[in-house]
Amino acid sequence: MPRPRVVALLAPEGPRLHDPQAPVVAADDAGLTRGDGCFDSALVIPVDAGGDDRQAGDDPGPTHQVVDLPGHLARLAASARALEIPAPDEAAWTELVATALRAWPEPGEATLRLTLTRGPESGGPPRAFVTLTERAAGRPQRGAAATTTRPVRAVTLSRGHPSDAFVDAPWLLGGVKTLSYAVNTAALREARRRGADDVIFTSTDGYALDAPTAGLLVVRDGAVLSTPTGGTGILASTSIGAILAAAEAEGRSARHELVQVADLLTADGVWLVASSRGPTPVGELDGRAVPVDDGLVADVARWAGF
Amino acid sequence: MPRPRVVALLAPEGPRLHDPQAPVVAADDAGLTRGDGCFDSALVIPVDAGGDDRQAGDDPGPTHQVVDLPGHLARLAASARALEIPAPDEAAWTELVATALRAWPEPGEATLRLTLTRGPESGGPPRAFVTLTERAAGRPQRGAAATTTRPVRAVTLSRGHPSDAFVDAPWLLGGVKTLSYAVNTAALREARRRGADDVIFTSTDGYALDAPTAGLLVVRDGAVLSTPTGGTGILASTSIGAILAAAEAEGRSARHELVQVADLLTADGVWLVASSRGPTPVGELDGRAVPVDDGLVADVARWAGF
Repeated sequence: MPRPRVVALLAPEGPRLHDPQAPVVAADDAGLTRGDGCFDSALVIPVDAGGDDRQAGDDPGPTHQVVDLPGHLARLAASARALEIPAPDEAAWTELVATALRAWPEPGEATLRLTLTRGPESGGPPRAFVTLTERAAGRPQRGAAATTTRPVRAVTLSRGHPSDAFVDAPWLLGGVKTLSYAVNTAALREARRRGADDVIFTSTDGYALDAPTAGLLVVRDGAVLSTPTGGTGILASTSIGAILAAAEAEGRSARHELVQVADLLTADGVWLVASSRGPTPVGELDGRAVPVDDGLVADVARWAGF
Repeated sequence: MPRPRVVALLAPEGPRLHDPQAPVVAADDAGLTRGDGCFDSALVIPVDAGGDDRQAGDDPGPTHQVVDLPGHLARLAASARALEIPAPDEAAWTELVATALRAWPEPGEATLRLTLTRGPESGGPPRAFVTLTERAAGRPQRGAAATTTRPVRAVTLSRGHPSDAFVDAPWLLGGVKTLSYAVNTAALREARRRGADDVIFTSTDGYALDAPTAGLLVVRDGAVLSTPTGGTGILASTSIGAILAAAEAEGRSARHELVQVADLLTADGVWLVASSRGPTPVGELDGRAVPVDDGLVADVARWAGF
């Protein structure tokens, strides 16, 4: 992964830029000692300069913007509430992001990561910072033909719990985008060990849940489906919300519904969806082919705004 | 929790002390962004000056020592292997710990925390550091009468998985002391909300597992029992290993065996065991009394070396 080019911290006196290579949290910060904090990631795209009516001499304005920043800030706020971390408000985050965007030196797209930790275990305020990183090479740029996305090979790995494990168990932090992602990264290493690119997590009662860093989208009998949040513990995905809404607006049936793992192989198509990389079709699951329909791939990319 | 008084880093040129309040990892360190790393904690005690035969003018030698440092380093090495993080070897860790101990300014006991992160996501070596922190007030000091320990009130909270969830699922990182502890700290907050001090995690099939930052010890019908590691996903505890060995040496039956939650209420006694605080008897579980036998409490403290 490329190195972050811009880091901005929310200091007591307001947002300030920080040397991207300099350390940012102390040895006893709970975000580091316990993975006790939350984050969110969003896509940063160039502002379309065409069609504006600015005059010479006007402030050129920002060169980049975050796709659905309010949606990501709302999800981050929900994560912070679940963790009971007193979080900066939306205006403070927005100013922090603007500070980072003004320093972004690249013409292309970037990934914005917003991080909030509980702060030092010895006491002290939560730590809030954002990073901007070039999007990894090979990822589809927004507006590029989605059909150039190579389908990925995925493996199924058990998440170890039934699909209703998170009902009435808020301490399990279902749906919270915490910094405690070691299992997610271990699952991705297991996938590579098996010669695959990614993972679809499964419940002990046989359902497909989500992926380590992406949500799951399934089109089956024409209906556009994604895993319910809540009792399953999976994260709400801002991108999947957008896809379901756009599919519904085109007259598709679109809903949250659990899908059995076995039914993935006979679906119309299966996608992993993350806002920082767009919808990626799954072409192979545990070594068996999953249908990839170019027309449907283009539909899903369009629904996602890619 | 008190602030760490000493922080030492393993730099490329060897161990060096670090300002305890200065940041220690970069914004893209996987230990921070993903809780992708591991740690271990150990008790630091004064070296007993009595009975030595040092002459005036000799190097006074270290004032403090770590209880079972090799045991903790072995567990840390096992955690690093499970995470596939290339870790410093035992000699390098030992030298790093010695560097920290030489700087420890207090006469009393301390907690040593050893941390290893995967390092920057953009590439670069793993990050290894240790901290020394005063032991929190009110914790029994080693050698003090164990019966002064107030029994704690615990609540049971589901861990969301069956007791065999981790069989053949190494990506779930069972038994690995990772930095991804957000659920553990959330469970402790839930306990406080319920007016309790601590948590006993339970499996969906009704067994008692462990506590968020401690192992579980049960004495039942005279036998000394602790949760099996492996398929349960719980951490191996160096302190519980020591207790089982000492109990067996005194002629007790001592073994790893799953105990049903309901059987905790009728046990001879129940303890939460962590090396940094010694064995703590549980006096109440979900508002119901758990037997606390002073003689047995003294036995368990002795077995633990407290």
